[in-house]
Amino acid sequence: MILAGSGVFDGSEIHEATMTLYAIMKNGGTYQVFAPDIDQHHVVNHITGEEMPEKRNVLIEAARIARGDIKNLKDFRADDFDGLIMPGGFGAAKNLSTFAFDGSNCQVNGEVENAIRAMAKEHKPIGALCISPVIVAKIFGDIKLTIGQDKDTADAVVEMGATHQRTDHGEVVVDNNHKVVTSPCYMLDANVLNIAEGADNTVQSMLELM
Amino acid sequence: MILAGSGVFDGSEIHEATMTLYAIMKNGGTYQVFAPDIDQHHVVNHITGEEMPEKRNVLIEAARIARGDIKNLKDFRADDFDGLIMPGGFGAAKNLSTFAFDGSNCQVNGEVENAIRAMAKEHKPIGALCISPVIVAKIFGDIKLTIGQDKDTADAVVEMGATHQRTDHGEVVVDNNHKVVTSPCYMLDANVLNIAEGADNTVQSMLELM
Repeated sequence: MILAGSGVFDGSEIHEATMTLYAIMKNGGTYQVFAPDIDQHHVVNHITGEEMPEKRNVLIEAARIARGDIKNLKDFRADDFDGLIMPGGFGAAKNLSTFAFDGSNCQVNGEVENAIRAMAKEHKPIGALCISPVIVAKIFGDIKLTIGQDKDTADAVVEMGATHQRTDHGEVVVDNNHKVVTSPCYMLDANVLNIAEGADNTVQSMLELM
Repeated sequence: MILAGSGVFDGSEIHEATMTLYAIMKNGGTYQVFAPDIDQHHVVNHITGEEMPEKRNVLIEAARIARGDIKNLKDFRADDFDGLIMPGGFGAAKNLSTFAFDGSNCQVNGEVENAIRAMAKEHKPIGALCISPVIVAKIFGDIKLTIGQDKDTADAVVEMGATHQRTDHGEVVVDNNHKVVTSPCYMLDANVLNIAEGADNTVQSMLELM
């Protein structure tokens, strides 16, 4: 799993991350969490939505979700894993990519792109929840995926070359060519039950692709 | 739910909090998250375990787990709820109480104590996971509970007047007198599956007490 911090508005969405770890183990897998050792784009007060005058590090904050058991993304080796998954949260669009600011002209963090391309080269499945499908859209271009039902975001992934499929709670879209599985999670007005279902269906679809 | 921040070493344990929210909804309930508007005792780098030269607020950080939907604990009214639950994490012993520093001589945050006593007065069930049973031990004294298998912590709750029951993964201890349900969760060497089971069993036991 690649994390982008800890918290929906400036990092990784905590329910999506936790429910994905749970889904991995429930389906018989094990996991290792990674994050890039970079500053967060910013720090957001999750009550007011306002920026806070602080600096935080993506890897150090992501370690909160991983209970300290986390590795620097620069040390990721595709040979060691059967799949790679990214939960959502604005961190995917602010820290792992610049999608929140640049839309379809966004850039993807180099270490994130390296990890995804290395997995793709070995034909291993990649999962992306919520907003993080924008990252695989930018990297692969011609890919079938979902980011839920938001028209502007769907338009942006189409501009990057992707084919968007509208989905509802818990549904997944599988691109068999790139072996990429996506699910909308909190891109919809969802609750933690919907997230559990979406994470579980994503992980199960990834296992079928292995 | 009362939270103590966001992160096992200085706040609420994220898997326990998320899995408890999931258990509440899975069993047909709804939830409201609360936290006290106080500074964290300290901020811990979750990779190194070292203190960071920062100040963070318990309510603002806990909002990360609650996706912003959180209330100040001072506004908690027992009339509005059927139960109260606290996940673990060191924040329960550093921010909601001073157990991490003072052991059986600890003090409990006044708003936390008020909330718990108000629920008890209305004979409504209280759940406490992981290390947070030390809070109900301090408040009620003569209570049957579990904090897992750690001898020193068990000795401390006994010093506060409690009867300790050793438990394994997913098990709960129910005190029918105080209507308090406890489960060890990450006080044991556990994984996220164990946490899901412990949270679910705790919530189900609370529902039976309602």
